[in-house]
Amino acid sequence: MMPVDRQSTRHGAIFSRREPLLLESGEVLPSLEIAYTALGRLNAGRTNAILVCHALTGNAHASDALLRNGETIPGWFDGVIGPARGIDTDRFFVICSNILGSCYGTTGPASVNPATGEPYRMTFPRITVRDMVRVQKLLLEHLGVRGLVTVIGGSLGGMQALEWGVMYPEMVGSLVPIATAAAHSAWCIGISETQRLAIMNDAAWRGGNYTVQPERGLAIARSIAMISYRSQASFANRFERKGIATGDGHERVRVFDDIPLAFAIESYLRYQGQKLADRFDANTYIYLTRAMDIHDLSAGRGSMKEVLGAISARVLSIGISSDVLYPPAEQKEIASAIPDAVYAELDSPHGHDAFLIEFDAMNRLLRDFLA
Amino acid sequence: MMPVDRQSTRHGAIFSRREPLLLESGEVLPSLEIAYTALGRLNAGRTNAILVCHALTGNAHASDALLRNGETIPGWFDGVIGPARGIDTDRFFVICSNILGSCYGTTGPASVNPATGEPYRMTFPRITVRDMVRVQKLLLEHLGVRGLVTVIGGSLGGMQALEWGVMYPEMVGSLVPIATAAAHSAWCIGISETQRLAIMNDAAWRGGNYTVQPERGLAIARSIAMISYRSQASFANRFERKGIATGDGHERVRVFDDIPLAFAIESYLRYQGQKLADRFDANTYIYLTRAMDIHDLSAGRGSMKEVLGAISARVLSIGISSDVLYPPAEQKEIASAIPDAVYAELDSPHGHDAFLIEFDAMNRLLRDFLA
Repeated sequence: MMPVDRQSTRHGAIFSRREPLLLESGEVLPSLEIAYTALGRLNAGRTNAILVCHALTGNAHASDALLRNGETIPGWFDGVIGPARGIDTDRFFVICSNILGSCYGTTGPASVNPATGEPYRMTFPRITVRDMVRVQKLLLEHLGVRGLVTVIGGSLGGMQALEWGVMYPEMVGSLVPIATAAAHSAWCIGISETQRLAIMNDAAWRGGNYTVQPERGLAIARSIAMISYRSQASFANRFERKGIATGDGHERVRVFDDIPLAFAIESYLRYQGQKLADRFDANTYIYLTRAMDIHDLSAGRGSMKEVLGAISARVLSIGISSDVLYPPAEQKEIASAIPDAVYAELDSPHGHDAFLIEFDAMNRLLRDFLA
Repeated sequence: MMPVDRQSTRHGAIFSRREPLLLESGEVLPSLEIAYTALGRLNAGRTNAILVCHALTGNAHASDALLRNGETIPGWFDGVIGPARGIDTDRFFVICSNILGSCYGTTGPASVNPATGEPYRMTFPRITVRDMVRVQKLLLEHLGVRGLVTVIGGSLGGMQALEWGVMYPEMVGSLVPIATAAAHSAWCIGISETQRLAIMNDAAWRGGNYTVQPERGLAIARSIAMISYRSQASFANRFERKGIATGDGHERVRVFDDIPLAFAIESYLRYQGQKLADRFDANTYIYLTRAMDIHDLSAGRGSMKEVLGAISARVLSIGISSDVLYPPAEQKEIASAIPDAVYAELDSPHGHDAFLIEFDAMNRLLRDFLA
């Protein structure tokens, strides 16, 4: 029997766990909530599950959800999840949980610290990708899942997939890390750092103790990120050097409305910044980018070659031709170091974000790999 | 006879021009100072000059200078300027001037507006690359130069070189644009925009009316820029995932000293940010990046193909294999559209900044081209 968890109206079901959680840092979280969604049916052996891991600003809604109040939550991976899709909900029990430290229902910096009755904010303990995976494991135990057909994720999601292969090899049949890193590169750390500083230099941030979101700082961080998620070519095709125009859907942009701008690309970046500032918590952004920067699959385990070489799961490592953040060479290195791994490339002009865009190609790759 | 201009102790010689200057925007600058350096001897025909154009945060000191007070100003292009170097001072009269709108001796936002007795700050008129080139032309007339063997520059300097080929074709024998753009791409505009917003969101900026430099905002802008100037591979080779260390020369970093950091790359970026904040003016940074964003060689002149196709000068277009900001494809396009042009590539892991690093390769290319 599946447990019946409290249904959240917005974040999915909530698994509340009263026991304290020991983190990799040595610090302890007194209790934990985990937001998750599940689609499809768990088989009798409880071994047909697929875990979908989200990226930096994602949530548990990998698939579209219609809430009781009529609101539709769009699924960020809906293009590959569903009947007869790459992640086939007729065959698999598909789980996606909001990661530890995020702000979509799982415990994180924006959650209330039970010891103080106030949000944790910057007093939240340091978290790592390994902590996120440990929390996912607790959820799967709670749901009675015994075996995972695959763990799939892009970017930060791919870091989780790789950690699953090292931390719980007996439980995973395969892994699909996409456009990710076995250890965050200096280039990526640098890009993260500029984003954190942009948030922290917003006068509204106040050392993390803001009452109003430091939305300009967070919008700048998002703009920096958006540039790194796309490519020279994708921006050139979409924006060229067009001027700002009405009717492009960017009228809602409030952030920086006192600072003039000339080009459509500027308007687009402010719009993306505003959208994130409206839906994501600034301190959470700092914690999760730090977790990505700290991520190193080999830390404390030997050389990277040894650690990747010991992964027993079958692996499909997917690179994106135009990804400047996690370039194809990095995905090929991951594939070449893992004994039972193949490399596949999404040939796309869309940069890092292509795994959230090129669904036809993703479906073909996943159908073949999971056949 | 060469005119004798007032010698500045820091910025080179200063040409003071009392007449008003009409800008492309239609606005007028009441007067103008131009800082410049010159090396070598102008020949009898006054036709052996080379104009060296600097990039965003550069200055007139393309070559090392020993000042009367014993201070040495390092030359940003010294590796290719000198006797028997690519830009041979035994053969050529080499001029470099600080561009219009900059803060190293030439009139710009940090200069005092004679009408008010206060710095222009954000009331400085909008300037373009064409304005910068017009000002360079005034300086060359003042110096009695009749012909330029070549105009050379990288990045913003390359934009000036291309404009020279269009605006004063009778005066230029050849051009060497390096890692530049005929029109700034949407990708580059986006990267500039995030940098400007980082400055403007610094509480110390105060709409441009700061009394103390908004150094955190400027440092963030520089960090964003530094990442785009280098490459994934160059950061990987230099920093890997090394932690911060004492003795790496970054101890002087004051900016963000209240915000913890873990990695050498973070320390390096803060150090670079601090260095720029110590030497460059924040409003100037806003004006010059805007001038780069506005830059479009074809604006008001026809199609880009027609405009490039009408350039009569011999052109050496140099691309850099690892440049993510102005990729090789863009430099090849420039070369292919100009009738008498060749393309050459610096094969370097150092990204956009390679033209300020790979001096041996640059010298070989320039010696051949100017032979």
